[in-house]
Amino acid sequence: MVNRYAIILAAGQGTRMKSKLYKVLHPVLGRPMLQHVIGQLNAVQLDEMVTIVGHGAEEVSDHIGDQSKFVIQEEQLGTGHAVLQAEELLKDKEGTTIVVCGDTPLITSTTYRALFDHHEREGAKATILTTKVLNPTGYGRVIRNENNEVERIVEHKDADDQELLVDEINTGTYCFDNKALFQALQKVSNDNVQGEYYLPDVIEILRSQDEKVSASITPDFEETLGVNDRVALAKAEATMKKRINEKHMRNGVTILDPDNTYISPDVTIEQDVLIHPGSLIKGKSIIRTDAEIGPHSEIIDCSVGEASIVKQSVAKDSKIGSRVQIGPYAHIRPEASIGDDTKIGNFVEVKKTVIGDKSKVSHLSYIGDAEVGSNVNIGCGTITVNYDGKNKYLTTIEDDSFIGCNSNLIAPVTVGKGSYVAAGSTITKDVPEDSLSVARARQTNKEGYASRIKNRNKN
Amino acid sequence: MVNRYAIILAAGQGTRMKSKLYKVLHPVLGRPMLQHVIGQLNAVQLDEMVTIVGHGAEEVSDHIGDQSKFVIQEEQLGTGHAVLQAEELLKDKEGTTIVVCGDTPLITSTTYRALFDHHEREGAKATILTTKVLNPTGYGRVIRNENNEVERIVEHKDADDQELLVDEINTGTYCFDNKALFQALQKVSNDNVQGEYYLPDVIEILRSQDEKVSASITPDFEETLGVNDRVALAKAEATMKKRINEKHMRNGVTILDPDNTYISPDVTIEQDVLIHPGSLIKGKSIIRTDAEIGPHSEIIDCSVGEASIVKQSVAKDSKIGSRVQIGPYAHIRPEASIGDDTKIGNFVEVKKTVIGDKSKVSHLSYIGDAEVGSNVNIGCGTITVNYDGKNKYLTTIEDDSFIGCNSNLIAPVTVGKGSYVAAGSTITKDVPEDSLSVARARQTNKEGYASRIKNRNKN
Amino acid sequence: MVNRYAIILAAGQGTRMKSKLYKVLHPVLGRPMLQHVIGQLNAVQLDEMVTIVGHGAEEVSDHIGDQSKFVIQEEQLGTGHAVLQAEELLKDKEGTTIVVCGDTPLITSTTYRALFDHHEREGAKATILTTKVLNPTGYGRVIRNENNEVERIVEHKDADDQELLVDEINTGTYCFDNKALFQALQKVSNDNVQGEYYLPDVIEILRSQDEKVSASITPDFEETLGVNDRVALAKAEATMKKRINEKHMRNGVTILDPDNTYISPDVTIEQDVLIHPGSLIKGKSIIRTDAEIGPHSEIIDCSVGEASIVKQSVAKDSKIGSRVQIGPYAHIRPEASIGDDTKIGNFVEVKKTVIGDKSKVSHLSYIGDAEVGSNVNIGCGTITVNYDGKNKYLTTIEDDSFIGCNSNLIAPVTVGKGSYVAAGSTITKDVPEDSLSVARARQTNKEGYASRIKNRNKN
Repeated sequence: MVNRYAIILAAGQGTRMKSKLYKVLHPVLGRPMLQHVIGQLNAVQLDEMVTIVGHGAEEVSDHIGDQSKFVIQEEQLGTGHAVLQAEELLKDKEGTTIVVCGDTPLITSTTYRALFDHHEREGAKATILTTKVLNPTGYGRVIRNENNEVERIVEHKDADDQELLVDEINTGTYCFDNKALFQALQKVSNDNVQGEYYLPDVIEILRSQDEKVSASITPDFEETLGVNDRVALAKAEATMKKRINEKHMRNGVTILDPDNTYISPDVTIEQDVLIHPGSLIKGKSIIRTDAEIGPHSEIIDCSVGEASIVKQSVAKDSKIGSRVQIGPYAHIRPEASIGDDTKIGNFVEVKKTVIGDKSKVSHLSYIGDAEVGSNVNIGCGTITVNYDGKNKYLTTIEDDSFIGCNSNLIAPVTVGKGSYVAAGSTITKDVPEDSLSVARARQTNKEGYASRIKNRNKN
Repeated sequence: MVNRYAIILAAGQGTRMKSKLYKVLHPVLGRPMLQHVIGQLNAVQLDEMVTIVGHGAEEVSDHIGDQSKFVIQEEQLGTGHAVLQAEELLKDKEGTTIVVCGDTPLITSTTYRALFDHHEREGAKATILTTKVLNPTGYGRVIRNENNEVERIVEHKDADDQELLVDEINTGTYCFDNKALFQALQKVSNDNVQGEYYLPDVIEILRSQDEKVSASITPDFEETLGVNDRVALAKAEATMKKRINEKHMRNGVTILDPDNTYISPDVTIEQDVLIHPGSLIKGKSIIRTDAEIGPHSEIIDCSVGEASIVKQSVAKDSKIGSRVQIGPYAHIRPEASIGDDTKIGNFVEVKKTVIGDKSKVSHLSYIGDAEVGSNVNIGCGTITVNYDGKNKYLTTIEDDSFIGCNSNLIAPVTVGKGSYVAAGSTITKDVPEDSLSVARARQTNKEGYASRIKNRNKN
Repeated sequence: MVNRYAIILAAGQGTRMKSKLYKVLHPVLGRPMLQHVIGQLNAVQLDEMVTIVGHGAEEVSDHIGDQSKFVIQEEQLGTGHAVLQAEELLKDKEGTTIVVCGDTPLITSTTYRALFDHHEREGAKATILTTKVLNPTGYGRVIRNENNEVERIVEHKDADDQELLVDEINTGTYCFDNKALFQALQKVSNDNVQGEYYLPDVIEILRSQDEKVSASITPDFEETLGVNDRVALAKAEATMKKRINEKHMRNGVTILDPDNTYISPDVTIEQDVLIHPGSLIKGKSIIRTDAEIGPHSEIIDCSVGEASIVKQSVAKDSKIGSRVQIGPYAHIRPEASIGDDTKIGNFVEVKKTVIGDKSKVSHLSYIGDAEVGSNVNIGCGTITVNYDGKNKYLTTIEDDSFIGCNSNLIAPVTVGKGSYVAAGSTITKDVPEDSLSVARARQTNKEGYASRIKNRNKN
């Protein structure tokens, strides 16, 4: 088997992105463009991967880590010059080298593999990844000879009338015989208007030596999109979104409006899940069978159990059990673990809390830093007072207890098993099991006073 | 007038849906596909409708009830075999029989009627519903003879070069002379690779007997979509959504973004209603003139009165008056009846409650199982304590009263006409008319204590 | 330089809009159609602008004010008759007059200027703004003569086979030599089926006098859309939205889903802002660099500072500082001013309130009519009781204070610098600096009572 190498060109400044962020780090569906490229290339099983980055691109290696070797191109002297930076690492090796742009996040491993295979099968010194387009205006045309091999690439502005009609274009991705690549690069000159060393000149040099240059056509033009500004970034986002959503739909997930549903690449969704419009499911979330998400819910790094429903809510870094009803307008913050058959209703915030099976927090409550048992009913307006301005304390509510509405539970505090807390109480001390705890003032009715207040207000 | 019958083929397993749910029960805009088909066919006024379902499809008859007769096809032996299951019910009848797939929810009654009319006008034994497409790849081509009648249907894989150029395709919907259909079906054999009895073979049999087969072209290809997987299901949903939204826009409703607005088929919307993006209006909701819905509101089975505004809220099974302001982030739960000129503000939940005209529940409240009079002001954080862990009780708040903030009203309880409840009170007993009711502790200020607490917290 | 005038035809009844609102006042991205037209024309610098409105269109002048002169067309006798209403104001003037429809909100000043320039450069008596379309069915075709000038306009229904093939269409926008226009208008007759005076007849009259009529082709067909019903209105909204979003993206704003992001024309957004799906940014909002908006946030007339985050929230008429975290599910109402490094958390409403730097209102609170210092912690469930049924009062919370959960602050009231308010307190009197203020009842635990309650409930 032939050795395979990759060089990723990621040194471009991306001026048109108008951003402080290094271009190839701009995310598509939450993952840097360069990471998409590396991920797809990795699936091809390479012997070596070298990413060419620009000066000052330390952030890039922070993100990518040891998934690729990095070489810094100190000056931006063109794509040919960029590839040359990998010379020291690669030049003496036998095999095939793919050269890929770091801003083409949509090309799949299938396409990369097909390009490698085509190149090696054809025994070419270079193979261009091409595609056909309805309107090739602006693109470099690939001109084939009588053997159906590549004769040359013609830029749009240099094309004659005949060549302008060619609809096969250069995508900017290539495979090369590795040694032939570095030998030819020696001959590339910067004798042109921009004074740059261009990689496509290698094609011309190889042809002038009568070497075989082939072209491998990929049918999906959309895949080859290069992201140079944020309009293209949005297009990449849309294409990737569509790809992911179709995968889930084919697996048996109902997505009512795939144009208005945003699922990150690492999300797992089981069969017969129903996703309403406006939902975002991110990170490594897992949604179990028969669950229902949305409309307008955002789920980040959560597991959602079977047949649970999360309506118009936000949940992050939490575990949600089976047959749970959440929302609308609930906020599940990190480190919540919510048991089976529970209800977390409207305007409820849960944070760093374990809630046992069959418990309910139906409305307008904040449950933070708490351990709630099973079969507990937490009344509307209940607040775990977990913070004294300095530290956070734990609230424990044992099984089968009933917390009356508008109660404050001042942590650290325990409400014992099967207890009642009367509505409107501020609980500062532990409540023993099976107790009723009350902490509120008596009611006084002052008859006729209402008129007096009204009269006073008139003045 | 000729008698008209329909046979709906709904026995397919729908393997590619990857679902526990029987294929034709998958909903499009909330209504099972099969229900769409039956509804459109019903508008044509038929003498008999027979739906062929697969074994174990009891759920289907539960949903459809007596809108159609049902016959069970015990084994899935092909579309011809499926139609044969209706033999007993239909074979001796004179008239026209339409055969329709249960997974084509987008075909309208106009198209069905046009097909019947064409068939009967032409005096054909069979008429195929066809449509023209830009790219017919994969579809069965309809080959016409010199009389412009149908000679045969050729599957894509069997088509010669000439036939591949034909852009008129078979949609899979047919009209037949009823008796001719069942006679021809006797001759259909399963002598083919799959060993199935195919309905299109009837066309060949009729032509071999020199019977007239016609084709009726429908201009709208989109309408003929068959739903075989969830990608197609999403397309059907989008097409139906577009159709409904355009109907409302032509009727004088402003929909700011019809791609991001979801209106169910049975919703009524009056002129000059304004719908903001991200709104879902479902069930049998009625939205009166000049009302404003959204952004991001979900309205289910509600009536919303003239000039009312429902922003970023969820409302279900309720009646909302005129000139009401709801939201953002309100939740109107079932059996609420909200009077005219009222306000239901942010983070307010209303459930099974009557609210009188000109009353306000402006913030952070839960009003459940209550009767609220008119001109009542319910302060922020008010809670009707309607549940003691076992039963639900009624709260009555009479006209012109004022409930102070953060009050608990422990039901059953009545706040009399024109009364005041002081902020922070827990009301356990009735408040007489025109009274001021207070139930709270006195304030004590401990000067210098704050520093002590801070110092303590430091340790 | 030639003088330039504009006549805007805005007298059409717009029957197909089915609306109480005068047609040209229907907004596109929140701004009346006519205002878009006037705004784009104004950018061309005209010497005079006259808008022809229908009888009863007082609302129009209310909206447009003195940006244009208005003439009322009492009877709707056709477009030629409409233009004639400007005769008194314009007929004796030398120069070029553009005639524009008030329902074409998408035409840009660039296009208007190009039309003026073309007209004046060509020395024509009339110039038609044309565009080319793939499918010209239904449009008036522009027929050119051997000099490439316009010979005539042919309506679709009057076109012969040759003319039907012409793909250059009349957009309904024209430039005229002003005097030639009014002279020709005298000769326009209403001798036709509808009995109306048609403006395009002026072209015929000028040609019959052998005057030069030119055509200026604009490349963007979408721009020339005329809005006659709400389906077209939605298209105009979509096109304008796309145009605005692309402008921001090219300026360095990341918009994750431009199809699901709604930005009004006067919004300013700085570089490296990130906008999540479902966001609406309206009015004259300013979003500073590195801020993050959405998903599903609505921002109206706010400034949002650097690196602030506004998730799933609504904010209006307010000033939000830098590095602020808002939401999810917060509601910032008018006249809020929120300091730097603050947090406004879930289910929090802020109204007419100043909040100092580094303060936090993390959950379930209502802060209205208040002045909150810096470094203040406002506990969950805190309510400023600002309303007594008649007047609103001010709450002052000084620097470094800590308001315990579920407190009521009954305004007018001041919590002094560095003070603590105990959870569950209703504060009716001022709290001096550095004090602890408590206003709540003592807790009593009644052991064994819980069982009794449960038994009682069983009966």
